[in-house]
Amino acid sequence: MRLYYSPNSCALASHIILEEVGADYSLELVDFTKSEQKQADYLEINPKARVPALQTVDGIITETPSILFFLAQSFPSKNLAPLDQPFKLAQAQEFNSYLCSTVHVAHAHLSRGARWSNDEEAIASMTAKVPENVGNCFQLIDEKMITGPWVLGEHFSICDAYLYTLTRWLERDGVEREKLPNVNFHFQKMEKRSSIQRIIHYHEN
Amino acid sequence: MRLYYSPNSCALASHIILEEVGADYSLELVDFTKSEQKQADYLEINPKARVPALQTVDGIITETPSILFFLAQSFPSKNLAPLDQPFKLAQAQEFNSYLCSTVHVAHAHLSRGARWSNDEEAIASMTAKVPENVGNCFQLIDEKMITGPWVLGEHFSICDAYLYTLTRWLERDGVEREKLPNVNFHFQKMEKRSSIQRIIHYHEN
Repeated sequence: MRLYYSPNSCALASHIILEEVGADYSLELVDFTKSEQKQADYLEINPKARVPALQTVDGIITETPSILFFLAQSFPSKNLAPLDQPFKLAQAQEFNSYLCSTVHVAHAHLSRGARWSNDEEAIASMTAKVPENVGNCFQLIDEKMITGPWVLGEHFSICDAYLYTLTRWLERDGVEREKLPNVNFHFQKMEKRSSIQRIIHYHEN
Repeated sequence: MRLYYSPNSCALASHIILEEVGADYSLELVDFTKSEQKQADYLEINPKARVPALQTVDGIITETPSILFFLAQSFPSKNLAPLDQPFKLAQAQEFNSYLCSTVHVAHAHLSRGARWSNDEEAIASMTAKVPENVGNCFQLIDEKMITGPWVLGEHFSICDAYLYTLTRWLERDGVEREKLPNVNFHFQKMEKRSSIQRIIHYHEN
């Protein structure tokens, strides 16, 4: 498999899970500073001009929740999602859906405001609200969504890789991780995983 | 089961699939015009103050992609998702993820701009960009994402209910459905389904 990524993007979540399952994969940098995501050859890979994209033997998969689920299902012995327990699996998917549709979107207004407005002052006003919005999302995650020690409870899962990825953005978002006890504990536990220690240098920019 | 919904919201997708699988369920209106989604008793159901929420025998599920998947997995004989084919299932989840994290979000800037800015002019500038943003999303859906006749090909799936739900918003978004041939064909095919004809009156406001 081949993972198309950019440093410090949400592609980190898929990268972590590729390591966790021991997949045979390579990395392909998509350099956003050179707008490579908008060039014709990358638009063939992902016409949405985003990362991550995962090239598999069957074709390309995009969207983090989908890639994470695919890897969990493709490597069932790794037990990275409660695949055969519909309600528990729904909780996992609910968590990942919340991260992609609300939390990542709240964060995106920090520096991607131009997606939703052409007006400079409007974009600045979106940036200004990011600490409050991302802070509210993470307050809810901290209070209600981490069963502990991992997101889903006793077992490490795809949700943990995704949460860790967005937690890494908190400093830029103007949110104090240290005031979120469960998130902070989770983050520190994640930092100790060998999968992350092996790959995190790709995501520091 | 019990579906908490508001008219013309994305809860319609879950409502359609409840009908399609023949589930035993009831409906509970959450009246946004009375801000019922922010009242204490509803926040017990869904602390995110959104719909849909699905009460099941095991507990509550939120987030449309998660509810749709849960129903497909709980009623496997209805064949509403390629549950045992990892790559095809990834394509289904990719589609639903795109709808929740990008398309619904593009639409939300029409009348929910206050989520991301406190400034009236900024909110108006977001509203102004909705036809372009939602239009671009649907152009991509039209050209690349509908296998035909259904989203995933020969079989009706959870993706079709979700796409139909967001297609219904196009008129308000200022996007001409008639200029999107595959989306338009899909929409008209959906309107003929008996599941939709039975319930659509709940979603017209």
